[in-house]
Amino acid sequence: MRPILPASLLALSLGACAHAPANNPAPVAKAPTTQEVIDASTPRDWRSLDPEHTVYLQLPAGMVVIELAPAFAPEHVANIRALVQGRYFDGLSINRSQDNFVVQWGDPAGDELPLRRPLGEARATLPAEFSRPADGLDFTALPDRDGWAPQVGFVDGFAAARDPDAGKAWLAHCYGTVGAGRAMAPDSSNGSELYVVTGQSPRQLDLNITTVGRVVVGMEHLSTLVRGKGPLGFYTDPARRTPILAMRLASEMPEDQRAKIEVMRTDTATWDAYVESRRNRRDDWYVHPAGHVDVCNLAVPVRPVPADTPED
Amino acid sequence: MRPILPASLLALSLGACAHAPANNPAPVAKAPTTQEVIDASTPRDWRSLDPEHTVYLQLPAGMVVIELAPAFAPEHVANIRALVQGRYFDGLSINRSQDNFVVQWGDPAGDELPLRRPLGEARATLPAEFSRPADGLDFTALPDRDGWAPQVGFVDGFAAARDPDAGKAWLAHCYGTVGAGRAMAPDSSNGSELYVVTGQSPRQLDLNITTVGRVVVGMEHLSTLVRGKGPLGFYTDPARRTPILAMRLASEMPEDQRAKIEVMRTDTATWDAYVESRRNRRDDWYVHPAGHVDVCNLAVPVRPVPADTPED
Repeated sequence: MRPILPASLLALSLGACAHAPANNPAPVAKAPTTQEVIDASTPRDWRSLDPEHTVYLQLPAGMVVIELAPAFAPEHVANIRALVQGRYFDGLSINRSQDNFVVQWGDPAGDELPLRRPLGEARATLPAEFSRPADGLDFTALPDRDGWAPQVGFVDGFAAARDPDAGKAWLAHCYGTVGAGRAMAPDSSNGSELYVVTGQSPRQLDLNITTVGRVVVGMEHLSTLVRGKGPLGFYTDPARRTPILAMRLASEMPEDQRAKIEVMRTDTATWDAYVESRRNRRDDWYVHPAGHVDVCNLAVPVRPVPADTPED
Repeated sequence: MRPILPASLLALSLGACAHAPANNPAPVAKAPTTQEVIDASTPRDWRSLDPEHTVYLQLPAGMVVIELAPAFAPEHVANIRALVQGRYFDGLSINRSQDNFVVQWGDPAGDELPLRRPLGEARATLPAEFSRPADGLDFTALPDRDGWAPQVGFVDGFAAARDPDAGKAWLAHCYGTVGAGRAMAPDSSNGSELYVVTGQSPRQLDLNITTVGRVVVGMEHLSTLVRGKGPLGFYTDPARRTPILAMRLASEMPEDQRAKIEVMRTDTATWDAYVESRRNRRDDWYVHPAGHVDVCNLAVPVRPVPADTPED
């Protein structure tokens, strides 16, 4: 038998899920595997993305679907929506790819202000939104210990952290987390410069920068980008930059051109079973269940909209 | 000013270090930054790699330097050395790239045994080496809590974990950790199929598979490989595979063709200062020092051999 490693979360890819048998009963002898949890899920365990807060980043290699987080960064999200609607990003580029850290896009003119593209209807300055009040969030806490924050868990599909004493919550910097680049001043971001985490969760950025969303589909188009040779992974050769063909709100696209996907809800019993299936792997390959899971090791499953689901 | 993110560990790249001023006194007003720790280090804070346990993986895009871990997997390391010396890997290929997980190389013939390349002097079967006795290791423990293991730290440059009650130690699956792929049987690896972690630390693999080393230089040649479209990220199109030009022990290469690098020792006061500089970032950009660091967020610094260092 060919020596292989077990599937990571990405075995839950669109293709794999599309062919998974539905409603397989879980075996009674042991806790269900991840695949069994997915197979046993019901339509109520899944949700669609809000088209007003979903952005399509169109690259030559394919499309990246980003879910915005207005509950965590309302001002930045509103500004990113204005930038997208004003076609600010179209024709700009990915200017930075730093191995094991981030990919970043925006105006390659950099700090040469006169050369920068005007922001249109969007605002040039915004308040920093590094955290928000913990109250008012549907926070599904993990029981697992985290070194970086008193509590971690999920809020509407976003990996998040919480400090009950300080009464604050924030998004965790995990693989796929999207944030708004800033200069030295904490309030120097406006959403026109965006980055996505492509490396080992840089949780040291938590509470130091405004996070605005997460990549739901298409990370591989960002994570494989050739690394820049300049400081911080900026491309020294402009030809290495990847052009942004377009950025669009899903709501701006005709319905038949929107991504037909659903993401697993993170506030259900199915989610809890999913987390447990990642905490203690029950696949036959594993001989030592970890008894632990890190918030950044829990990719939220994505699936195509089932064929028998009414589309309205 | 251009909105950017701060440098990750990879700002400690060869180029950056080569131009860093030496022996800068650390400011007294605050704990030193990472760069200040590096600048203040002395030759004794660095070590060279053992050429008998250093492997060069030569790919079309460039060279990957791998440090083997005989202290953790003596049988596998001996077998990998035999495979390399027998030129087993030359002309084989990277057959798998799974986003946010691993890249894997070996014989693309897979489980079609008659088609597989013979192992030569190497052994076909080995015992599983998932852990080793904790005794006898120079283990520099981190004070930081870890969810996956009772203790984490570093052993001779390798991110490691330890269970004092069980008296066991093992390598942690971090970005760049190299392991020996196996099938369902725990003792089904022999080192002819190797993987490297390219995604968020898959610590659930700890104690489930034999880890054999770590990538010291050249991760970007592996992490950017196009992802495979088949199950587990295997390439369905053979043309997508990346050929392995050669794998060589450093000791097999003429001295002037060996990588002229040093890595920071992980058992010194300088290392402790380095760790603290990552735990609480003192760079001006940061407004919230984390007060924590994860074992997998601590890349061991690498630098070119200083020009004034005798090479013998």
